[in-house]
Amino acid sequence: MIFLGEKVRGYLMIIGGAEDRSGDKEILKKFAEISGQGEARLTVITAASQDPKRVGDMYVEIFSKLGIGNVEALNIESRDEANKEAIAERIANSTGIFFTGGDQLRITSLLGGTKACQALEKAYRHGVIIAGTSAGAAAMSDTMIIGGSEDHAPKGNTVGMAPGLGLLEEVVIDQHFAQRGRMARLLLAVAQNPFILGVGIDEDTAILVYPDGKFWVIGSNTVTVLDGRCVNFTNVSELRPGEPLAMCNATLHILSPGLGFDMKNRKPLLA
Amino acid sequence: MIFLGEKVRGYLMIIGGAEDRSGDKEILKKFAEISGQGEARLTVITAASQDPKRVGDMYVEIFSKLGIGNVEALNIESRDEANKEAIAERIANSTGIFFTGGDQLRITSLLGGTKACQALEKAYRHGVIIAGTSAGAAAMSDTMIIGGSEDHAPKGNTVGMAPGLGLLEEVVIDQHFAQRGRMARLLLAVAQNPFILGVGIDEDTAILVYPDGKFWVIGSNTVTVLDGRCVNFTNVSELRPGEPLAMCNATLHILSPGLGFDMKNRKPLLA
Repeated sequence: MIFLGEKVRGYLMIIGGAEDRSGDKEILKKFAEISGQGEARLTVITAASQDPKRVGDMYVEIFSKLGIGNVEALNIESRDEANKEAIAERIANSTGIFFTGGDQLRITSLLGGTKACQALEKAYRHGVIIAGTSAGAAAMSDTMIIGGSEDHAPKGNTVGMAPGLGLLEEVVIDQHFAQRGRMARLLLAVAQNPFILGVGIDEDTAILVYPDGKFWVIGSNTVTVLDGRCVNFTNVSELRPGEPLAMCNATLHILSPGLGFDMKNRKPLLA
Repeated sequence: MIFLGEKVRGYLMIIGGAEDRSGDKEILKKFAEISGQGEARLTVITAASQDPKRVGDMYVEIFSKLGIGNVEALNIESRDEANKEAIAERIANSTGIFFTGGDQLRITSLLGGTKACQALEKAYRHGVIIAGTSAGAAAMSDTMIIGGSEDHAPKGNTVGMAPGLGLLEEVVIDQHFAQRGRMARLLLAVAQNPFILGVGIDEDTAILVYPDGKFWVIGSNTVTVLDGRCVNFTNVSELRPGEPLAMCNATLHILSPGLGFDMKNRKPLLA
């Protein structure tokens, strides 16, 4: 078992999208707090968004109101920009980094392998918290879900995947999970390699991943954990597009806020 | 373990709704075949429907074209009708009985405890096949799902239940399962009593339940089996409306056509 090995790492806050931005702001508040609150240097990365200025301004305003004095949005729109020293330095000197929603392929295709990305990884390994909502959540894992079919039954070809940022190994994240009926694509992803832990995060809900590989749920909805370790049969390798999936003996956990999960030992944490 | 005890019983065909009626008609053809094909006396019960005449005529036409000479629709619209000897006799003398879709509460509130229902139970105990699609599927179990909230995240008060026809014990059926994103309400139903087996049947898909308590999947989509027997934690009894569910250690099987499930021993059947 090499899961969550000996690497030194920081914190991740993986948000299922549509987090509360006008009420209690529980999730964003927690992120600001872990980032260092008054001492924080927050960087918002809007690479996923097609309207980066608006989205960046919105989060800068929210975090400012939450008491963060030093918060800046980096609206990186090209790989050249992502290779600029100034950008990499801003990231390297952050105490918290926040990825907005949009399209996860924009994040990885703009940032993958650039100086910005190296700075991000380094910051993370030094204990900085990296948060991402929606597309920013999906992009965190080694392999990420980039799309699914409109058919909600689990079938061949109903999930598209691509290489993610790799901050979290051996996990696949899906977001807007219950709200967009995404069980089928998580099932497909886990069937493809049952060693992968499938984590479906509902809207206004987040997992806070600690360096020891445990996570805790915050927010207002649920987190679905699909553990394929005991799967003893699947037909996924033989499926042609549209053919129905089979997968037997997966383990399913529905976690409400306050509960957690030990990803190393694959066990729910009740307190 | 009293599951599927010593009762003598017949066959059930439980269809997730929207079964193919114009192409191969795989599911309806199978029902006609088991009912005795040329020798069959089929009875279509349209009690669930608010437009019984149209629905009844449609199925009579389909089954006639499939080679059934003796097929009749009983458009029972009152409990008085359901207590008529002629109705009970038609049911008692059937070799196959088919419940159409509509509203499962119409089925149980019109038929529950009537002579028609007694005749149905007796026919079933004598080996007759009872089929139901959509509402007709939901109504088969001891306790049936009658509705759910529009919120697709599993939360307190998101599932409504009522007493069903009781042809299948210790199982809860949900239909149009993946197509209508109904995992949340099946999770709630199973959390309420983890001994209950949750069976979610997709559209154009059916389970054929044999007298020995095994079922096999036919059709074009999948059947989701949610087994709560190993659940070691749930907060369901404490949930107020809208509060998120927790349930740990459920077992999940996704069954494609050709696979089966042994309900007595809670094991998938691969061939």
